[in-house]
Amino acid sequence: MTLQLFAHPFSSYCWKVLIPLYENGTAFEYRHIEHEGVFAELAGYWSIGKFPVLRDGDKTIVETSAIIEHLQIHHPGPVPMIPADPDAAIEVRMMDRIFDNYVMNAMQPLVNNAIRPEEKRDPYVAEGVHAALDKSYAWLDAHMAQREQDGREWAAADQFSLADCAAAPSLFYADWAYPIPAQFEHLKAYRARLLARPSVARAVDEARPYRSYFPLGAPDRD
Amino acid sequence: MTLQLFAHPFSSYCWKVLIPLYENGTAFEYRHIEHEGVFAELAGYWSIGKFPVLRDGDKTIVETSAIIEHLQIHHPGPVPMIPADPDAAIEVRMMDRIFDNYVMNAMQPLVNNAIRPEEKRDPYVAEGVHAALDKSYAWLDAHMAQREQDGREWAAADQFSLADCAAAPSLFYADWAYPIPAQFEHLKAYRARLLARPSVARAVDEARPYRSYFPLGAPDRD
Repeated sequence: MTLQLFAHPFSSYCWKVLIPLYENGTAFEYRHIEHEGVFAELAGYWSIGKFPVLRDGDKTIVETSAIIEHLQIHHPGPVPMIPADPDAAIEVRMMDRIFDNYVMNAMQPLVNNAIRPEEKRDPYVAEGVHAALDKSYAWLDAHMAQREQDGREWAAADQFSLADCAAAPSLFYADWAYPIPAQFEHLKAYRARLLARPSVARAVDEARPYRSYFPLGAPDRD
Repeated sequence: MTLQLFAHPFSSYCWKVLIPLYENGTAFEYRHIEHEGVFAELAGYWSIGKFPVLRDGDKTIVETSAIIEHLQIHHPGPVPMIPADPDAAIEVRMMDRIFDNYVMNAMQPLVNNAIRPEEKRDPYVAEGVHAALDKSYAWLDAHMAQREQDGREWAAADQFSLADCAAAPSLFYADWAYPIPAQFEHLKAYRARLLARPSVARAVDEARPYRSYFPLGAPDRD
């Protein structure tokens, strides 16, 4: 039975799952949310209607981290996303949540607000989002500086992992919405390393045709 | 070295970690965020400043799910929060994220908005939060109905788990902020089962003195 991924190429959380699929050359059917009838079919499996959603036979798996754990167990490839060592796995899962919660979700209110009709926008959103991202960027820069000193190029443990799958789209879009300040050179260098990774570069390229969708206005750069 | 948990008794995400600690009778030092100097100390370990934060020797662990994974590995007790079976563990981790993201975090904008000075409140928040919780409640009610049919009383796999630790505070407070409609009797029964569990009842009791903190006004019930 072919794996089916209900996804959209511009969606940050869809990238998070596409990256491990591309890393491992895992075969799957890409069910593009904009294609006719696809969203209705997705909603039949997951009434919350968020994506990506993975169908594996008659099983529905939602939430990106759970999907990646499922892929690792049932469709393993050469690049495991969660280390076998229990402590390393905790470190990876902790950094996954840090990128999801303190970068991706922290930025989201800015995007949600921009989608609203102009007269219904909340004028106090940006201030809060910027304050939150300032803290996140500062902590992540110090974290990546320490990682570099330890001879590590990725976010957690000793390998490219689930944490980097979360980092790539969150740092990509957060830097568009509220640029990482120049002084955070370790974080900026990490973002550049992520974008140079072929699986991430592929996700970035597939999203190019949709850049006009970015509610805050996509800058003319990656 | 004694475990230290930086926490506040009224914080929903702190309950999520207190529940497995109480389930397992794990010894720890409760560093109450309101006590003098405690928040400053926490901020020294975790500059983002969110809590709970666990200190285990010189290790700092943040994010509730990662803290619970850490407790299970390094301070195991009689009630494991993540099943040993890999598929059951994925189910538990998926449901954990569903409660965190589609109940707790879905409700949060309502609370955040109520904390703002009245003239700075966003009049369009409630509509979005209610629509999101309507979907979450409906899906969860159907899920719990299916679980009951399968002879299961908890949210995932065959045991009380990480998923229920996330469910207890999220359903407790969400039902205060936007009551679960009467027709969702399976979800309401599950919330009642959670509140009857001694570890959860203890967290509820410890939070009682702080009910006046609830920004939307605490109703006179659990």
